[in-house]
Amino acid sequence: MSQSHRHNWRLTLMYDGTLYSGWQIQPHANSIQQVIQNALLTRIKEKVTLIGSGRTDAGVHALGQVAHFKTILPLDPASVLKSLNGLIPSDIRIVSIEEVPLTFHAQLSAKTKIYHYHIVTGPIVPPFIRLYAYHHRQPLDIALFQKAAQCFVGTHDFTTFANSASEGSAANNPVKSIYRLDVVPTDYGLRCEFEGNGFLYKMVRNIVGTLTDIAKGTMSLDHIEALFKAKDRKKAPKAAPACGLFLMQVRY
Amino acid sequence: MSQSHRHNWRLTLMYDGTLYSGWQIQPHANSIQQVIQNALLTRIKEKVTLIGSGRTDAGVHALGQVAHFKTILPLDPASVLKSLNGLIPSDIRIVSIEEVPLTFHAQLSAKTKIYHYHIVTGPIVPPFIRLYAYHHRQPLDIALFQKAAQCFVGTHDFTTFANSASEGSAANNPVKSIYRLDVVPTDYGLRCEFEGNGFLYKMVRNIVGTLTDIAKGTMSLDHIEALFKAKDRKKAPKAAPACGLFLMQVRY
Repeated sequence: MSQSHRHNWRLTLMYDGTLYSGWQIQPHANSIQQVIQNALLTRIKEKVTLIGSGRTDAGVHALGQVAHFKTILPLDPASVLKSLNGLIPSDIRIVSIEEVPLTFHAQLSAKTKIYHYHIVTGPIVPPFIRLYAYHHRQPLDIALFQKAAQCFVGTHDFTTFANSASEGSAANNPVKSIYRLDVVPTDYGLRCEFEGNGFLYKMVRNIVGTLTDIAKGTMSLDHIEALFKAKDRKKAPKAAPACGLFLMQVRY
Repeated sequence: MSQSHRHNWRLTLMYDGTLYSGWQIQPHANSIQQVIQNALLTRIKEKVTLIGSGRTDAGVHALGQVAHFKTILPLDPASVLKSLNGLIPSDIRIVSIEEVPLTFHAQLSAKTKIYHYHIVTGPIVPPFIRLYAYHHRQPLDIALFQKAAQCFVGTHDFTTFANSASEGSAANNPVKSIYRLDVVPTDYGLRCEFEGNGFLYKMVRNIVGTLTDIAKGTMSLDHIEALFKAKDRKKAPKAAPACGLFLMQVRY
């Protein structure tokens, strides 16, 4: 069947993940992939498989998720874009649809990904960001958070910071490179900006969980090296919650 | 009864107005004033009247609403603050409670108020701000918007830009002063920042509605003067929607 696919389409999309079971189709769950595939079937009358740059978990958000799908027949992308946004709920928006070479693959062609993770510290979460940040009541030492973050930059075996379900075929190799992990103070706490060549399952949230423990003083910064060496997820602190995480951009 | 009130408390609060009928108590409606008064009754066991700096309409948001209430008995404000935030939904947050002189009145003592109004232009509204901005699909000429906004700065009779239900006793005088009306470009459109000594019912939204018509080219800038002179709400364009409006700050 795939021999007859003559067109390949790249979608860029944003979503508020609050009400979804995550990116990936699962039985009896409300996934973002399913919502868009259903709308595509309605609009273009061709059953397609939408392949994302990677899964995002339940409650994780995206400002720059990328996906592709192949079709047998040509499309008018501007018209399809408009129709799809009319068919799907307002918490998912397709930002662009463009034709790309048949060799383009949203996951396998990706070179780097940028994730942001938002933390609100202190007693009050402003209502407008209550679904978009991790609420950490105790104060965090931002200078220490920044220092600890630098221990994750570079090429490492991230086994300790990965949960067992991998993000896809490329994720089986636990050695990944983080090019940048900036910790930026915000009005209500801080934002971590990750850029790397690949992220294992729950890796960003697991790293943020560890950084948070260090910045609140319950783990020593010196302990990070031992965590990497242990190659054991159970040795590291629990993952930070999904709602603080945003997939910002996928670079090809 | 009011003779026995020996304490006066000033509350600063934020709310996402999406799910509320507005600030003010109304029968069979879910008002912000009611939610907080109910929580106060639960916590301090004294029935109080919470007086806001002004009403906000259904769907209008606040980052810096101020209110006061008087009590017979003293309170521990830090403890009450914590309890109240536990009793009310996360879309309303009390930011501070402080004791103020008995003469302080949230509405009558206010000197200026700052409102912001957010507009998203273009075909797509990012999901994260879909409840917090007016979606105006057609492009707007921001330079023209800015120029037209300056016509509203200063002291004017704003009758044409006020709906009939007034915001309170002080609002019966239609002559108000706008000290500042800045139009700031944003990532997705623009933000209007109003500061003035008082705002009539729906005045900000009515002014934004007029500015929008000018910036999209359906009304001439020169027509503003005639609108002011008409002193007739029916002559001006319709109000911009509630969801774009934020009460940012009340200055005393």
